[in-house]
Amino acid sequence: MNVELINTGSELMLGRVLNTHQQWLCRRLADLGYIVTRQVAVADTGRDIETVVREALSRADLIITTGGLGPTSDDITRDLIAGLLGKKLHEDATIVRHIEEYFLARKRPMPFRTRVQAQVPEGAIVLPNPHGTAPGLAIEVTNELELKPQDGGMHSLKSSRFHPSSSLSKKLLIMLPGPPRELRPMFDSSVVPLLQRVMPLSGGYNCRTLRTSGIGESAVEEKVGALLKPLVDQGLDLGYCARIGQVDIRLAAHEKRGLLLIHEGEAIVRTQLADYIYGEDDEPLESVIVRLLRERRKTLALAESCTGGGIAHLITNVPGASAVLLASLVTYANSAKQKFVGVRAETLATHGAVSEAVACEMAEGARRETGADYALSVTGIAGPGGGSDAKPVGTVFIALASASETVVLKQFNAFDRETFKNVTGTQVMELLRRKIR
Amino acid sequence: MNVELINTGSELMLGRVLNTHQQWLCRRLADLGYIVTRQVAVADTGRDIETVVREALSRADLIITTGGLGPTSDDITRDLIAGLLGKKLHEDATIVRHIEEYFLARKRPMPFRTRVQAQVPEGAIVLPNPHGTAPGLAIEVTNELELKPQDGGMHSLKSSRFHPSSSLSKKLLIMLPGPPRELRPMFDSSVVPLLQRVMPLSGGYNCRTLRTSGIGESAVEEKVGALLKPLVDQGLDLGYCARIGQVDIRLAAHEKRGLLLIHEGEAIVRTQLADYIYGEDDEPLESVIVRLLRERRKTLALAESCTGGGIAHLITNVPGASAVLLASLVTYANSAKQKFVGVRAETLATHGAVSEAVACEMAEGARRETGADYALSVTGIAGPGGGSDAKPVGTVFIALASASETVVLKQFNAFDRETFKNVTGTQVMELLRRKIR
Repeated sequence: MNVELINTGSELMLGRVLNTHQQWLCRRLADLGYIVTRQVAVADTGRDIETVVREALSRADLIITTGGLGPTSDDITRDLIAGLLGKKLHEDATIVRHIEEYFLARKRPMPFRTRVQAQVPEGAIVLPNPHGTAPGLAIEVTNELELKPQDGGMHSLKSSRFHPSSSLSKKLLIMLPGPPRELRPMFDSSVVPLLQRVMPLSGGYNCRTLRTSGIGESAVEEKVGALLKPLVDQGLDLGYCARIGQVDIRLAAHEKRGLLLIHEGEAIVRTQLADYIYGEDDEPLESVIVRLLRERRKTLALAESCTGGGIAHLITNVPGASAVLLASLVTYANSAKQKFVGVRAETLATHGAVSEAVACEMAEGARRETGADYALSVTGIAGPGGGSDAKPVGTVFIALASASETVVLKQFNAFDRETFKNVTGTQVMELLRRKIR
Repeated sequence: MNVELINTGSELMLGRVLNTHQQWLCRRLADLGYIVTRQVAVADTGRDIETVVREALSRADLIITTGGLGPTSDDITRDLIAGLLGKKLHEDATIVRHIEEYFLARKRPMPFRTRVQAQVPEGAIVLPNPHGTAPGLAIEVTNELELKPQDGGMHSLKSSRFHPSSSLSKKLLIMLPGPPRELRPMFDSSVVPLLQRVMPLSGGYNCRTLRTSGIGESAVEEKVGALLKPLVDQGLDLGYCARIGQVDIRLAAHEKRGLLLIHEGEAIVRTQLADYIYGEDDEPLESVIVRLLRERRKTLALAESCTGGGIAHLITNVPGASAVLLASLVTYANSAKQKFVGVRAETLATHGAVSEAVACEMAEGARRETGADYALSVTGIAGPGGGSDAKPVGTVFIALASASETVVLKQFNAFDRETFKNVTGTQVMELLRRKIR
């Protein structure tokens, strides 16, 4: 099955907004087994939208558009697609009532322009919008449909130079509104049941992601690539995704048989990469940390210098972090290191702020001052300034203090400033994970 | 000029990662005057990539691909495009040396597979990658080029059913690596000069962005829209971009005459939005804060609760932040609020941790304990849990302590957890900016 996603909006092409629809819809669709084969973004001009919808109709079984259903003059998707498919529009009384009630509930006058959102192409299925005024629309298109001619000549889907990718007798074109808080609930409550009714999949699709830290992408492939090859030959879809300081290994396959391939693949990856694997699927490292600490009823404190609060920021993004994180002492200045986590002036003078000795004193001090079970510390040179021959930019010391011991690690993360903070944060959290897992 | 952006990666189609390249590249290109007309994402299978590159070559003058230049087996863009254009690959000794040095500097063995990244299609321009191992590649393609046949038949660009969109005799195809920290500096240092040399724009394109905080998008439009209308009618390109807690106003125009329109537009926006404008063009609020403090030789401390280090993280992303930020005390637990910034037990008992009184004591305590000139504090309920009828999720108190006074602000930011932290962080920094500007 061919699935295409079309995102419209000039602000996308000018790079003024991030296209979060792509990830969200591709993810949701993939989890249901409908893998998006192509995603396209164009400006919301009639010509551009018409061209890409035409092309998609000639290739895909399922087409989803986002945006252009609102009330302003640049919202043209509904009219344009109706015109392209030769469908007349009529006003839907239920939608008009919904829009009126929407404004009534908010005690705001209903602008006249909003009424255009009640226009429905003939034969279209209305997808209700409980979080806004513009409903979604779904239209079943038959392969034999003759499109409104472009450039003079007749152009039918059947005689297109592209051939329909499957023997499905129907295509489905779904138009969704642009705002994510309207699109997302609409997808879950209306689009999913519609897909399962109109174009059910013969077999399921399964996906497993194993997430690693502390090993590079090529080293990962060297360890598992050859061993997984026989499974790939049998249909396992294997992917590597390198992120900053982390590599994900994705195992996916169709049908029930696929589950077995994924299962075998996972066993190989787990054996080969063992300690490097910090988690599965969507759980980021900071969530793993919070979960492990909660399960063990342990608390954590941080003393951050070069990461500047970045680690606390990640950990406090996890709901429930307050149950485990007592404090992060972002001791950027040397005076703050002395004052808040009790680093000694002699240690700073003898070893410098970026040193094993200071990292240890920071971790031990943070643990002592907060009463936490574990304390992590980090001190380093993020750059671009501040490096020396002995301690170049990228030098970093990480320590973990617990009841039994303090361990310290030296790393060299020669990256730009933000990547440095990111990679270092992963290493700091990973040091704790390996201690408490 | 037609510009197309092709993003490759199965993880995109499966919705496992967010396509940040789209926004970043579209933005940078638009600011240079090269507006992207179409963006396409496909999986990194040979067939899909070949199809979209072929299509793009038939339509666009400038094509930029991202991803697929790395060392693993799913990195096939380089080979595939070389094959499609009928260009032989050869190993480039300079790149091999760069890769060897890259691993040497990191004291890691060089995996054999990484050497494939030194393969260069004949005639291609190498775009150096100081932040990774895979260089970018640029190939000039002539309209007369005969593409390697697909499906048996010959297929030349000249005889394509699509016609080249302009009379340019050359097309430029640029391949960039996937990791943003490699792609972005490469674009700025190598792609921009290349574009300006190989396909300069006939007239200049000028762009000015004014950045505001503390006012909504429709309120911005109400204040400036009608006044800017005459300039828009004369050719000023006006855009609003609402981000979380901030709205950018973009004024752009072509040619020298455009500079005058932008100049007049900027004067109107500055008069109308005065205090709301915190900066210009690409300078984020945290950079403005660091710059203002440095200019005034003042220091800053933070006491963060609900933002969990997020504000310190933003500020320490700015190079040179260490000259102004002494410490951020991320006092997540009540005990930490008492211990590190001297919040009194009675205040916590009487008013609760999320209160005006606690915000004031946090700011004053952070200033006293660190000796900073200014201290900002924030305490609130990020959610999803922890809200009550009296203090629902989203309630937040912000305080600023200085030598002369302590001011406190109540805000209500009822968003998801990460958005809450983001919006709150902007409000906290904005409170300081208005004090010291």
